Amino acid sequence: MPDIGYWNGQFSSLQDIRLSPEDRGFLFGDGVYEVIRAYQGVPAFAGDHFNRLVRSAGEIRIPVPFDQATFQEILLSGIRQSGYSEVKIYIEITRGVAPRDHVFPAPCEPTVFFSFREMGKVPSEWRLKGVSVITVPDIRWNRCDIKSLNLLPNVLAKQQAKEAGVFEAIFIREGSVMEGATSNVFMVCQGGIYTPLINHQVLAGVTQQHVMRTAQRLGKGMECRSISLEELMRADEVFLTGTTIEILPVVAIDGCSVGQGEPGALTKELQRGFASLV
Amino acid sequence: MPDIGYWNGQFSSLQDIRLSPEDRGFLFGDGVYEVIRAYQGVPAFAGDHFNRLVRSAGEIRIPVPFDQATFQEILLSGIRQSGYSEVKIYIEITRGVAPRDHVFPAPCEPTVFFSFREMGKVPSEWRLKGVSVITVPDIRWNRCDIKSLNLLPNVLAKQQAKEAGVFEAIFIREGSVMEGATSNVFMVCQGGIYTPLINHQVLAGVTQQHVMRTAQRLGKGMECRSISLEELMRADEVFLTGTTIEILPVVAIDGCSVGQGEPGALTKELQRGFASLV
Repeated sequence: MPDIGYWNGQFSSLQDIRLSPEDRGFLFGDGVYEVIRAYQGVPAFAGDHFNRLVRSAGEIRIPVPFDQATFQEILLSGIRQSGYSEVKIYIEITRGVAPRDHVFPAPCEPTVFFSFREMGKVPSEWRLKGVSVITVPDIRWNRCDIKSLNLLPNVLAKQQAKEAGVFEAIFIREGSVMEGATSNVFMVCQGGIYTPLINHQVLAGVTQQHVMRTAQRLGKGMECRSISLEELMRADEVFLTGTTIEILPVVAIDGCSVGQGEPGALTKELQRGFASLV
Repeated sequence: MPDIGYWNGQFSSLQDIRLSPEDRGFLFGDGVYEVIRAYQGVPAFAGDHFNRLVRSAGEIRIPVPFDQATFQEILLSGIRQSGYSEVKIYIEITRGVAPRDHVFPAPCEPTVFFSFREMGKVPSEWRLKGVSVITVPDIRWNRCDIKSLNLLPNVLAKQQAKEAGVFEAIFIREGSVMEGATSNVFMVCQGGIYTPLINHQVLAGVTQQHVMRTAQRLGKGMECRSISLEELMRADEVFLTGTTIEILPVVAIDGCSVGQGEPGALTKELQRGFASLV
């Protein structure tokens, strides 16, 4: 079965979709995106992803040309057509096609693109034994709260992690922990669970939000606050969250063990709690 | 005559070129670009643009799949096929097509795209009477020396300028002048000509370099150094440089007149000196 795509109102085989080279996504990274995971054919947290997509697009003034009901229909139809039950859905909206000029084209006819691919299995070893990470200076722009296509620093950081033999790179800005190149970061200290403040330097993660709620539901102390690199390095537990990875324990940072160097008790409890949601 | 494009080894009508939505230019802004202007069929400073393209690509580790001789051949052939004598040539190289994953695909087969469009006339009024600008906080990433496709902050700044009724937005970082959203900035103070230091926060402009050499050739004092916003506001003359605009006098910044509020003598002398180059 070929992978399915959706482009400006039509479903087709993903490989049949072709774009103009004057799409502003291709020329300027002038667009926003989301990644949604479907479990057994059901897209998880689709409302949250839709809301974030609308917010991101609104912050850069791209009109979202569908409402939530249509969004849900596209998701369900694409999943059904793909034939997959575990699906990784990618959604991108750009400011459309126009001869290259930085100023917004008027009128704006956004490009809408979805792809439906089979969700590859996240190795169970990562989930059970944890992953290692490096830290890198945060050289990104100051609006990382917008889930935009300007992802070159994330690409470079993720590649640096791969070449260091680890799963993820964590951005550090002026001594403070921001987020991973493709994930949010949590730490556990003396029984309290912490994740960095959500501001213009950090994307509010959908999985992050649900993990925070899971922690509260389980009666754990949970706080958003500034986290220094030093605190992270001496935390009892550290873990990453993200749509495709869910919750991954971090067992080493820059070559130094986290806690006992194995997944912590609270991390495992949150993994079980989150699994019950999806 | 249709606009001409060149894509992965083939010339065609620009409108016939179609890309995969899984091109990393479209997904991540994972690529670099150049804009070259041809005067009477001759591309200006093509060697400088080639060198900068190779440098930008090298900084993000995209292999440039052609040498300078081939680059020149593509330029000349495209210009000839377009039938235009005044041409705006856009060149983009991305890290190619692959299922979406931040880490570099291996092997990397870069996408190469050129477009050849007629160069619209820059209004002579801008050149003769000058333009107005606004200043905006520099929220871009820390590698603006790379001419990458991550241009969303430039798009937003240029749109802000347009809505303020002015030509350009100048990025200010911690009180210092960096560059315009689509241009470099110069100021004249007490007979000396200054442009900001070239570092990781500023792109080294091809026109900027040639204006600097022109100033030296004309025996003018010329220096790259840090420039504060305060200095810029009380400069005797200010001007912008860029491939398509060449040299444009700035007569107002954030609503305040520069010098006497009209193009300065040194700016006009440099305009004449630069015109003799192209």
